[in-house]
Amino acid sequence: MLPFARVTILGLGLIGSSIARGIRQHMPSVRVTGYDADPSVRETAVAIELCDDVADSAGTSVIDADLVILCVPVGAMGAVAAEFAADLPAEAIVSDVGSSKLSVIEAVREALPNATFIPAHPVAGTENSGPTAGFASLFHHRWCIVTPPEGSDPLAVERVSEFWRRLGAMVETMEPGHHDRVLAVTSHLPHLIAYTIVGTASDLEEVTQSEVIKYSAGGFRDFTRIAASDPTMWRDVFLSNREAVLDMLQRFTEDLTALQRAIRWGKGDELFELFSRTRAIRRSIIDQGQDDARPDFGRSHE
Amino acid sequence: MLPFARVTILGLGLIGSSIARGIRQHMPSVRVTGYDADPSVRETAVAIELCDDVADSAGTSVIDADLVILCVPVGAMGAVAAEFAADLPAEAIVSDVGSSKLSVIEAVREALPNATFIPAHPVAGTENSGPTAGFASLFHHRWCIVTPPEGSDPLAVERVSEFWRRLGAMVETMEPGHHDRVLAVTSHLPHLIAYTIVGTASDLEEVTQSEVIKYSAGGFRDFTRIAASDPTMWRDVFLSNREAVLDMLQRFTEDLTALQRAIRWGKGDELFELFSRTRAIRRSIIDQGQDDARPDFGRSHE
Repeated sequence: MLPFARVTILGLGLIGSSIARGIRQHMPSVRVTGYDADPSVRETAVAIELCDDVADSAGTSVIDADLVILCVPVGAMGAVAAEFAADLPAEAIVSDVGSSKLSVIEAVREALPNATFIPAHPVAGTENSGPTAGFASLFHHRWCIVTPPEGSDPLAVERVSEFWRRLGAMVETMEPGHHDRVLAVTSHLPHLIAYTIVGTASDLEEVTQSEVIKYSAGGFRDFTRIAASDPTMWRDVFLSNREAVLDMLQRFTEDLTALQRAIRWGKGDELFELFSRTRAIRRSIIDQGQDDARPDFGRSHE
Repeated sequence: MLPFARVTILGLGLIGSSIARGIRQHMPSVRVTGYDADPSVRETAVAIELCDDVADSAGTSVIDADLVILCVPVGAMGAVAAEFAADLPAEAIVSDVGSSKLSVIEAVREALPNATFIPAHPVAGTENSGPTAGFASLFHHRWCIVTPPEGSDPLAVERVSEFWRRLGAMVETMEPGHHDRVLAVTSHLPHLIAYTIVGTASDLEEVTQSEVIKYSAGGFRDFTRIAASDPTMWRDVFLSNREAVLDMLQRFTEDLTALQRAIRWGKGDELFELFSRTRAIRRSIIDQGQDDARPDFGRSHE
């Protein structure tokens, strides 16, 4: 009944370690093998008993897998796939969790020209990184977007989809290029802007960093959470989804310039019209269970 | 021992109603009178027993007050002050909670040339509005910035400061113009950017609004909370703190353009350097108790 019996997770950070924990919770009979290029991460994984086995190399880790999931930064996917190419069982399905898909598909196909590769992207995360940051419920009620390249085996797509449903996610399939444009606006642009504003605020001369930190509850602190996300992962996302990110950024800049002009010329009606419109989006996100309905994200006020 | 015995709150929204609740919790012997220009808000305030008295006019509300706090949008401060000018007791202290100070000081001084006006700004809030949105602990461990104009009576400044300390806030005094520049970066710019990106995302043709909502957990949803804040309040903030907001916006745009260029030319090192730097700011904010230390703001993951 289970879609896979032996799963290998390459990269034991926030997402990889959450998958391992999710499998233990929801599919306890599945055997999980983990590997991470960083020896200290492997040690931690052993110490906290994250997986059934922690392998010493990427090749060893995949030897008897029926699902191999790449959970490394998108810029490293191709290299990691090449590392285990010679050891991959012919019947195994390879998947990933990357935030951009076209570039990952290209890289993995080059490294594994004959493998069945079904890319996926669970839209979930926190600002924390590493093997101790993961938790089994990270994917509950979150969307996982499966982006099969043209000509993919429907049965393989269904097995990967079922795997994610078992972890508590809702699954949607999408064309890889469309995925990259959707995520450019719902995830990549927000991260880019958060990183930028935190940088801008820390570079001021007349307002000290200490003041920025003290009075951050006025709104700024919300951006610092996202801007605390893993630097390597996000560098790779922006470089790999360059065209879509630059396009969304261009639209954002145009809109920001229009608001700037409205402020300069005192056009209160234009501001009010936009600010009223954006409230409705928040309501829809909460209605669809995609955010905490409690005020202030449910932050503690004591 | 209490700094004031009879407090009048004009404007019973999120902040005004939180002050009323905070007084009841922390200074239960203080008599609280409330007023709101909106009759339905006054009715709600009576129904939920928010204050000891709800007055029928701004003038009536201040008749025996020793502290009058303006909790209306910054663009309405002057008009509300003018409404009760004839009824204000000579000994009363007037204060406010506005997010910008220079323009409020000018407007209130014009309306109340002889009153003792000690402006203040509690740096706290949620995305919700109205008399039922407030809660007594909103100001706990948050900063309240008192911005006395030159020549203010030190005793009056101390009484207003003590009032906020009693509500659980930490108090800092600051020159009004400096306040406006600090808040432009820690609060006003973040709100402007959040409103913009939510607008940009909802205006795309090829990515549907439904997709934006579904996949918002990738980062976008964080911005929608701030962009659900009160439209009137925020329109007024941007118009009243125009110069400082435009200046911060200019710096932000320059930094964003530099990142855009780094992405276009594949300069991964520049991206990585910024993304590493911004992590430290988040840590400081948490170390100083200005945000929830739990991952994802403590959002529920079940």
